[in-house]
Amino acid sequence: MKPIIFIILDGLGDRPIKELNWQTPLEAAQTPNLDAMAQFGITGLIHTIERGIRPGSDVAHLSILGYDPRHYYSGRGPFEASGYGIQLQSGDIAFRGNLATTNDKFIVVDRRAGRIESSEPFAKLLNGIEIDQVKVIAKAGLNHRIAVVLRGPGLSDQITDVDPHLVNKPVLRCQPKNDSSQAKFTAAIVNKLIDHAHKLFKEHPLNKKRVKNKQPPANYLLVRGAGKLMNFKSFFEVYGLKSACIAGAGLYKGIARILGMEITDVSGANGKPDSNIVGKIKKAIELTKTYDFIFVHIKATDSLAEDGKFAEKMHFIEKIDDAIAPLLPFVKNRRLIVSVTGDHTTASDLRIHTADEVPILVAGFGVRTDHVEKFGERPCQRGGLGHIQGRNLIDFLINLRGESHLYGN
Amino acid sequence: MKPIIFIILDGLGDRPIKELNWQTPLEAAQTPNLDAMAQFGITGLIHTIERGIRPGSDVAHLSILGYDPRHYYSGRGPFEASGYGIQLQSGDIAFRGNLATTNDKFIVVDRRAGRIESSEPFAKLLNGIEIDQVKVIAKAGLNHRIAVVLRGPGLSDQITDVDPHLVNKPVLRCQPKNDSSQAKFTAAIVNKLIDHAHKLFKEHPLNKKRVKNKQPPANYLLVRGAGKLMNFKSFFEVYGLKSACIAGAGLYKGIARILGMEITDVSGANGKPDSNIVGKIKKAIELTKTYDFIFVHIKATDSLAEDGKFAEKMHFIEKIDDAIAPLLPFVKNRRLIVSVTGDHTTASDLRIHTADEVPILVAGFGVRTDHVEKFGERPCQRGGLGHIQGRNLIDFLINLRGESHLYGN
Repeated sequence: MKPIIFIILDGLGDRPIKELNWQTPLEAAQTPNLDAMAQFGITGLIHTIERGIRPGSDVAHLSILGYDPRHYYSGRGPFEASGYGIQLQSGDIAFRGNLATTNDKFIVVDRRAGRIESSEPFAKLLNGIEIDQVKVIAKAGLNHRIAVVLRGPGLSDQITDVDPHLVNKPVLRCQPKNDSSQAKFTAAIVNKLIDHAHKLFKEHPLNKKRVKNKQPPANYLLVRGAGKLMNFKSFFEVYGLKSACIAGAGLYKGIARILGMEITDVSGANGKPDSNIVGKIKKAIELTKTYDFIFVHIKATDSLAEDGKFAEKMHFIEKIDDAIAPLLPFVKNRRLIVSVTGDHTTASDLRIHTADEVPILVAGFGVRTDHVEKFGERPCQRGGLGHIQGRNLIDFLINLRGESHLYGN
Repeated sequence: MKPIIFIILDGLGDRPIKELNWQTPLEAAQTPNLDAMAQFGITGLIHTIERGIRPGSDVAHLSILGYDPRHYYSGRGPFEASGYGIQLQSGDIAFRGNLATTNDKFIVVDRRAGRIESSEPFAKLLNGIEIDQVKVIAKAGLNHRIAVVLRGPGLSDQITDVDPHLVNKPVLRCQPKNDSSQAKFTAAIVNKLIDHAHKLFKEHPLNKKRVKNKQPPANYLLVRGAGKLMNFKSFFEVYGLKSACIAGAGLYKGIARILGMEITDVSGANGKPDSNIVGKIKKAIELTKTYDFIFVHIKATDSLAEDGKFAEKMHFIEKIDDAIAPLLPFVKNRRLIVSVTGDHTTASDLRIHTADEVPILVAGFGVRTDHVEKFGERPCQRGGLGHIQGRNLIDFLINLRGESHLYGN
């Protein structure tokens, strides 16, 4: 059976940009290898949730991995916490946290505390404390990122974010979303934790040093995306494929770990524009010897667009194009199935995720080709896949191998 | 945020017509402005309900406005009654009515009583009467059209039409659709009302005069489309957009009013081929200063096709093309989002609504263009939107503005 390499370029899709002569970064990029795969494969446009629905990265990934977020998603927290290596238990409530900078009126000045080097010293202050018999688990991610988990009886994920999601806005108080005593109790715990963290953080020597150096202090903990772990069947149980994940950023590792994928490490794979993507692709090829499905996640296409850096996104796509060159002979020999797409569009002009469809190419074993010769938003409008929905993608790929479950007789 | 002008050309789609050299009226029409918008925008084909499902204008409009008719539709009556200005109450049963001509054997000779000038004198005869403690509200629409509402306890919309929908057929008796006492009671009321109306109408001096003048008398009330008002969230509640409606015909005003849109008036906008469509487009541009979403409805494309007048439909489309010319600079400056499509196909050869898909174009802010250069049924087959479902359209358009609700995190 042919292995599948499943490459997600986060936020790949984009909109026509005036400075790129009304092309998108992908259209404007020189991508001879992606174009060769498009020529040798089939292309189309994918809407990862529904047409017109603007997705976060978490639900978009669940959907394109075949897990309907309406059943498997209650918040981003559990995927983030799992990605940082926290083993979640049933009943835990998990959050994504940011170390942030607030002024003395509790207005958010910087949602990422100047992308501080590490949240490790701050996570340590909170990890293991108890509030009203609820245990707090805190673990550092990259830079300002921190995962927070509440463990104890009677907790609910029906609570609001503390993170206002915007700068120059006041921090929010956590509120219950319904009248249940669990939601009220959990919201109260969160508010106590946030206040406690603020007291500890603002006095921390590291912050005193940051203020002296005119760096924004990490004096506030903004949590968001409260969620509990849903009852997942593993990727192997659902699809019968041995799977591995190559990702830099925590969220994607977390999703993969929850789906029972093997999490592998590639040195220098950090989810940033200087990530070792050459190493990731080499690793993916190597893993095809032992795995059926290799999920490769590349993050910076999204982050660059969220910062409005369309030219940098274009150049990063060109770097990706170089990095995937070693896949070409395997695709042409039909020894692999390679899928390249994104989880959503990130519009560089608007600096947000949008619901615009994302180009997709699938090449290698079993593929019926089409006439598209270039990988891009507009060329793929004419692709043989047409407009495909995210939840159908894994079934489509597994079918190419020729072994999927027969429905009927 | 960019305003959306949402133009529905009722029954726009058509079939290839022999006399037009097997082109459709839209394909055969000279439409330089629509073609320019297609070139500057993205195109496709829309199935407003489901592929293959032949829609009435009422359900088609609900669907393309994002309201699933399976939840929001129990009959045409309430939309029509609301369009004529009746304020419906919970429990009311509303009907669309026609003044019609029957012979002495109760065979329908003319379903529209020769499109009589006004139904006002007849509506007045019925409005306010009571039958078995049920109040009758009747209000005149254009020509033969009349809205009828029953108000009182214990009424049901599970009853059949009195209108046979065809000439040379006998009028029908209203029947309960189930065994409930409510349905039986309501059907009995309807039959009493129809008989009472017939008695009053046939003796009316206006009808005596019509008979003398060899005009078909308005001697019968044909009701159809019994329905109750479903529990609607307003367009603003659902989408967060301030919306206005520019329409001539009652049904569309009624739908818009029920969705909480502002109903605006344009002098000479009458839903007919001589409607002031130039004024409607001017008004739409003016309303973009104060509204986010302007729904413009143009009716005669449908009525002409229902009368088999394919050449007139073609010429009317050319008039529309002239009228929309002022939108072009706004589209090219990306200061607006303009969507042009229909609610269904009306096949001029068959003189009925069909389920054939309808061409759609979307142009302006945020749009990824495609290679289609002409607006028409066949050119749009290759459009970048592909085959889009009605219920996704509003989400697609709002996403272009860049502000829609984010699902996930």
